[in-house]
Amino acid sequence: MENLRQAALDYAHDKQGDFIEDLGALVAIPSVSMTTENKADMSRAADWLVQKLKSIGMQKVRTYETGGHPVVYGEWLEAGPDAPTILVYGHYDVQPADPLDLWDNNPYQATKKGELLFGRGVTDNKGPMMGTILAVEAVKESGGLEVNIKFLIEGEEEMGSTNLETFVKENTELLACDMALNPDAGMIATNKPTITYGLRGLAYFEVRVYGASQDLHSGLYGGAVHNPAQVLCELIAGMHDEDGVITLPGFYDSVRPMSAEERAELARLPTDEEYYRKMSGVSEFFGEKGYTIIERIGGRPTLEVNGLLSGYTGEGTKTVLPAEAMAKVSCRLVPDQVPDRVFEQLKAYLAEKAPPTVRVEAKILSRGMPAISDRHSVGVEAMSDAMEEIWGTRPLFRREGGTIPVVGTLQKYLGAESVNMGSALPEDNMHAPNERTHLPTLFKSIDAIILFLLSLGKRKGSDN
Amino acid sequence: MENLRQAALDYAHDKQGDFIEDLGALVAIPSVSMTTENKADMSRAADWLVQKLKSIGMQKVRTYETGGHPVVYGEWLEAGPDAPTILVYGHYDVQPADPLDLWDNNPYQATKKGELLFGRGVTDNKGPMMGTILAVEAVKESGGLEVNIKFLIEGEEEMGSTNLETFVKENTELLACDMALNPDAGMIATNKPTITYGLRGLAYFEVRVYGASQDLHSGLYGGAVHNPAQVLCELIAGMHDEDGVITLPGFYDSVRPMSAEERAELARLPTDEEYYRKMSGVSEFFGEKGYTIIERIGGRPTLEVNGLLSGYTGEGTKTVLPAEAMAKVSCRLVPDQVPDRVFEQLKAYLAEKAPPTVRVEAKILSRGMPAISDRHSVGVEAMSDAMEEIWGTRPLFRREGGTIPVVGTLQKYLGAESVNMGSALPEDNMHAPNERTHLPTLFKSIDAIILFLLSLGKRKGSDN
Repeated sequence: MENLRQAALDYAHDKQGDFIEDLGALVAIPSVSMTTENKADMSRAADWLVQKLKSIGMQKVRTYETGGHPVVYGEWLEAGPDAPTILVYGHYDVQPADPLDLWDNNPYQATKKGELLFGRGVTDNKGPMMGTILAVEAVKESGGLEVNIKFLIEGEEEMGSTNLETFVKENTELLACDMALNPDAGMIATNKPTITYGLRGLAYFEVRVYGASQDLHSGLYGGAVHNPAQVLCELIAGMHDEDGVITLPGFYDSVRPMSAEERAELARLPTDEEYYRKMSGVSEFFGEKGYTIIERIGGRPTLEVNGLLSGYTGEGTKTVLPAEAMAKVSCRLVPDQVPDRVFEQLKAYLAEKAPPTVRVEAKILSRGMPAISDRHSVGVEAMSDAMEEIWGTRPLFRREGGTIPVVGTLQKYLGAESVNMGSALPEDNMHAPNERTHLPTLFKSIDAIILFLLSLGKRKGSDN
Repeated sequence: MENLRQAALDYAHDKQGDFIEDLGALVAIPSVSMTTENKADMSRAADWLVQKLKSIGMQKVRTYETGGHPVVYGEWLEAGPDAPTILVYGHYDVQPADPLDLWDNNPYQATKKGELLFGRGVTDNKGPMMGTILAVEAVKESGGLEVNIKFLIEGEEEMGSTNLETFVKENTELLACDMALNPDAGMIATNKPTITYGLRGLAYFEVRVYGASQDLHSGLYGGAVHNPAQVLCELIAGMHDEDGVITLPGFYDSVRPMSAEERAELARLPTDEEYYRKMSGVSEFFGEKGYTIIERIGGRPTLEVNGLLSGYTGEGTKTVLPAEAMAKVSCRLVPDQVPDRVFEQLKAYLAEKAPPTVRVEAKILSRGMPAISDRHSVGVEAMSDAMEEIWGTRPLFRREGGTIPVVGTLQKYLGAESVNMGSALPEDNMHAPNERTHLPTLFKSIDAIILFLLSLGKRKGSDN
């Protein structure tokens, strides 16, 4: 066993140079799922992954069409029906790179600077996802793969995994598994291995306020025609009260309260105010009264403005009274909130507050269920042990503010608990310019996955 | 006299085809003053006008450099020192054409459809400005020019005539005149000749709210980092109270109240609610309580949001917590408000209301003094008579909601009252897509200027 472990770890270590090159090739494909102009790139990225999975000996590798971007699937079931089956999740799509001028390098050309690799997707999720492939390859090539593997790599995570639920629902036999490994969560710091047991959900909206039939001259009409940008600001301003509490009617009705025990546990996380101050560059915080920062981010729902657009936004002055104004607004949800119910609450709020001088429209663009995983499942215990070996410290357990819709979907349709981990660090500029990954952390997390796979195999508990 | 009048009018009528072609050539130069990329076009437009003024026999025609775009000047003083001198104002710059996709035609290719001519600047102010040139040419060529003419055509009206005040101040001798003719005002309707005696001023601001040092992931930070877009919305929402009253401290202190007599006069204007409903496509109005629409637009100050920009505004969803948010906000001012004092009021408001979780910056981008002209000046009387002859109805007198900063500047430095008129109609889509001019109205206003020039000449009161 000891030799096997070392062989698998050595294999992965020897491949680190190839791995960075491979990751660079995938980063070079601008697989932005949410913009129609990148549709061809999405197919290219999926096809690239098909070749990649074939190259490490996966079988039945292919893409599956969905209502949106294709899903990549591949399996290796030679461990046999008595061995556990692990569904390895990942996503090959990325967020848009704009604003481009804030990047120091081309976002689609992976650029190594010391221990850091820069590029769109290197940490979310191309790097960690490719890491699982290398880990499986290492265990397999060193002869230690005693679990069945199924890869499920989707292309719509960054747009809320729009079509994944249907795909999972319709392919429960194909995807049947004992547990899922999800490398799309992250770590609190380089020396703090982390397992994420709670994930917030998401309900993402677009709100549009329409006034005049076209843009008007602000001098000739200003003072008499209600300004849609002003109305939009008023509507958004009213969505929080003075205590940072969200005012959508019924918003908190189904929020599961945190127990005193859980709050005490969360209080032990090292992510204090000072940490968030350093990470965000913000000196003073804001949020729901009565909760710590960790609780606000992990255990409480939020409402954020993700985008605002109205009228003239270029250089200089244009005296326009805009015909419309748009906001992207999204809520992070916690159990047991439901995205579509929150959409109803938003619509009720708008119907009540919007003045009769304008027309207001709202639509829901994306949904993700919140999830809480079992901290004591076999998979989580195995990952916890593996991380402790690699980092020399027990992992932290946290509820994360982000959303990985697949976790709730796999719970619901496959009965599978996910082991949510990953190498992404808070300072990795996920979704932002200069996205990066810390290579030593990424490589350690590959090592941890190798030990995790080995420990779950049939050899577990046997001699040597 | 009658022959001379007819000759001048005939001359202008014969030239209508050439005029449209000429105007098209000027429209083809995208002289957008506020965007740096059009700097060369601004020079081209100025040079084009120099040639144009030379071609009708103006003298000392040249451009004058300013701190921004050049001023075009030309004069004809052969009427002699005893004849009145009329300063003809105009501007060759235009508003940006965006959003381009809402135009039915190329904005920089003048397109005639029946009685309408479409293109950026055809009504604001290239068409009316070229109309004054044709009127002067017609009177001069038919031998009836008995007044001295000075053309002052600036290139910064659409950015608030930033450098015009300095230019006028430093060139009071060059520009000395008995009155000014300003064709940059407009008409209430095709059959309603109009003289504008009051103009609102302008103070145009940019407000920026800064939060984190860069865009953040809304899941990983949402709930703890104050969202600058939300703060901006709250700040803007607070700038009006429930009665549409502006809340900047001291905002109304120097607003000159309208007298009962003036309100009665304004009430006779035909621009009722139905009119504004038709023009704007808005069914229900909004504004300062206690004032009619005409009063709100002409005689009361306003605060408008001209633009909003923050975060992700493209297709689909990006779960970003923006690092900053920007608004363009402008106030239309009435006598005796002063732009820089309103800027102080805005800053005082922001200092009081901005939370300590963000940093707020404001700057003033443009200033224009409000103005009220003498309704009984020689020039206004002459124009009133001329308009009555051409349209067969006495003109209406109005206070306009728009701003023409030069009017206050000429009052202040040259002691010159302006005759504010023009052919622009409310339905001309000024500053908006599909800007247009109604050619019969433009040609009638040229006729009126011809009669105005003739009636002010030395021949006035002499025989025939």
